[in-house]
Amino acid sequence: MIDQLMKRIENLANPTVVGLDPTYEMMPQTIRDEMLERYGKTTEAVGRMFLRFNQELIDHVLDLVPAVKLQIAMYEKYGIEGLKSYIQTIAYAKEKGLLVIGDIKRGDIASTAAAYAAHLGGVEIEGLQFDLWNEDAVTLNPYMGFDGIEPFLLPCNQYDKGIFILVKTSNPSGKEIQDLIADGRPVYEHTAKLVSKWGELAMGTNGYSRVAAVVGATYQEQGLELRKKMPHTFFLIPGYGAQGASGEDIKGYFDRDGRGCVVNSSRGIIAAYQKDSKFGAHRFAEAAREAVLVMKRDLEGIS
Amino acid sequence: MIDQLMKRIENLANPTVVGLDPTYEMMPQTIRDEMLERYGKTTEAVGRMFLRFNQELIDHVLDLVPAVKLQIAMYEKYGIEGLKSYIQTIAYAKEKGLLVIGDIKRGDIASTAAAYAAHLGGVEIEGLQFDLWNEDAVTLNPYMGFDGIEPFLLPCNQYDKGIFILVKTSNPSGKEIQDLIADGRPVYEHTAKLVSKWGELAMGTNGYSRVAAVVGATYQEQGLELRKKMPHTFFLIPGYGAQGASGEDIKGYFDRDGRGCVVNSSRGIIAAYQKDSKFGAHRFAEAAREAVLVMKRDLEGIS
Repeated sequence: MIDQLMKRIENLANPTVVGLDPTYEMMPQTIRDEMLERYGKTTEAVGRMFLRFNQELIDHVLDLVPAVKLQIAMYEKYGIEGLKSYIQTIAYAKEKGLLVIGDIKRGDIASTAAAYAAHLGGVEIEGLQFDLWNEDAVTLNPYMGFDGIEPFLLPCNQYDKGIFILVKTSNPSGKEIQDLIADGRPVYEHTAKLVSKWGELAMGTNGYSRVAAVVGATYQEQGLELRKKMPHTFFLIPGYGAQGASGEDIKGYFDRDGRGCVVNSSRGIIAAYQKDSKFGAHRFAEAAREAVLVMKRDLEGIS
Repeated sequence: MIDQLMKRIENLANPTVVGLDPTYEMMPQTIRDEMLERYGKTTEAVGRMFLRFNQELIDHVLDLVPAVKLQIAMYEKYGIEGLKSYIQTIAYAKEKGLLVIGDIKRGDIASTAAAYAAHLGGVEIEGLQFDLWNEDAVTLNPYMGFDGIEPFLLPCNQYDKGIFILVKTSNPSGKEIQDLIADGRPVYEHTAKLVSKWGELAMGTNGYSRVAAVVGATYQEQGLELRKKMPHTFFLIPGYGAQGASGEDIKGYFDRDGRGCVVNSSRGIIAAYQKDSKFGAHRFAEAAREAVLVMKRDLEGIS
C-alpha cells in the first residue's frame, strides 16, 4: 500500500490526503433537508448525509489526491448507521481509484489485535472470505507494544496493506506521555525506534516499510529529528491546516527526494465552504477542490 | 457508575467481571448449526451466534456478578452485524440488571474524542437524543494525553458513567513503552499520576473517582505500588485466568476494606466448557457459572 501510495503521490505531484471527517454541523442545508425528509430525525438520515457529502467530495478531488483518510470516530458516533456510512464511503472511494486510510487508532493485547486486524485482512466464515471494512491501511496506537501490532503484519505482507503507528501526535496534550524523557530521549523517540524495528518485518519495494508512522505537523523540530532517525518509515502527517501547521512547517519531514510523507487535512478542505463566502453551501465540493489546489501549491514549494 | 459497581460488588461479595469476548471457535455446535442454517454462511449468522451465546451466559451468571465487559474487537471483527450483536448484548445485559463495561480502548485528539464520547453520552439529532452504544463505562488509551480523555468527563459526571484508562496492561509487550524509565519512574507511573489528577475532576461519592484505571493482574509488584499511589482510583484488572494470574497475585490491588477493584476473566469463564469435559458443549453456560463460582472463592480469600 505504501508503494502504491508513493507512486500515486509522484504521478499527481501531490502528497495531500483529504480527511473525510464529516460532522452534522458541516452538512450543507440541502443535503440535511433532503435526508431528514426521507429518513426522519434518525441516525440513518445522518449516515446518508455523510455518505452523500463524502461522495460529492470524492468526485471533486479524485484527480488531485492519492488517498483519503476517514476518522472512524465521526461515524462511530452515530452507531450502526454511522458505521455503514463509513464502510460505504470506503467502497466508493476505492471504486473511484483512491487509496483509503482508516483512522481507527486501535491497539490491544495479541488475541484482540488479531480481531481488529480484520479491518485489513477480513474474516473467514466456514471457508468464505468477507472483507467487511476493507481499508488499505489503518492507524494504530503503540501503548501496548508489539503484541498489538504483530497481527497486522500478516495482512500488510499478504495483501500489501499498511499500518500507521502513532509516534508523535499533533494535539497539545500529546506531550504528557510522549515527551517524557527516558534514558535521555523522549518517549516518542523510543516509540519511533520500535516502529522502525517492527518495520523491518514488512518492507515495501521503494525503500519504505508498510509499517508507517503518524508524526504531527505541529512539532517541527521533532518531525525533523524523526525523519533522520526513521529513514525507512513513511509518515502520515496530521495537524496541517485547521490544526495550525503550514507547508513550511513540515519541510524537513520529507526525504531528499521529496518523498516519504502524506499530509492530511480534514476540516480545512471538507469544510472550506464555511470559511470562504464566495462558495455557497451548495458548492461545498468545489470549495474543497479549491482548498486542495491551494494546499497542493503550498506543499509544492517544500516537497 | 463506579459507586453503583462498588455497591453491587459488596452486595454480591464478588468483584468478578465476566468478559463477553466470544470467538467463532467458542461457539457450541448447536448454536453454530442453528444460525448457519437460518442465516447462511454470513456475518449475520455469526452476530446471532454471539448474541445467543452471550444471552445464555448472562442468564446463568446475573445473580453472581456485578458487571460484564465486552471486548468490542471481537464484534468489530464481523463488521456491522458483529457490532449489532455488541449493542444487543449490552441492551440485554442492562435489562437483566448488570453493569456493562465496553472495552473499546479509544483515544484521540479532542474533537475526535468528543465523537467517541457518544459511547457514553449518546448523540442528539435535531433535538432528539439517541443512546446508540449505551455502555456504563468504557476503556480508554492515554497515549495522546488529556485531550483524548476530557470529552468523556462530561458524560461521567452528567450521567454517572465511568472510564477506565490503560495504565499498566497485562500483556507481555506492554512493557516496551509503559516500563521505560523517565525521571526515575516508569512511564506507567507517570500515566498513573495523570489518571489520578484527571480523576479529581469526576469524583464519585464512595471515595473513588469515575475516572478509573486498567492495571493488569500479571505484574503484581507494580499493581501493589500503583494501589498505594492511586488511593482514589478504582482498578479494572485484566489478566486473571487464561492470561495466567490467580487471586493470590492480585491481593494487594484491593484497598484495606477489600474494595477498589473489579477482576475480569473472559476465556476462563465463557469457554470453560472447552476445558472441563464434565460439561458438554450444550451446557456451556453451566460450565461458565461454575467457573464464576470457582473464581469467586479464589477471590474471597484475598479481597
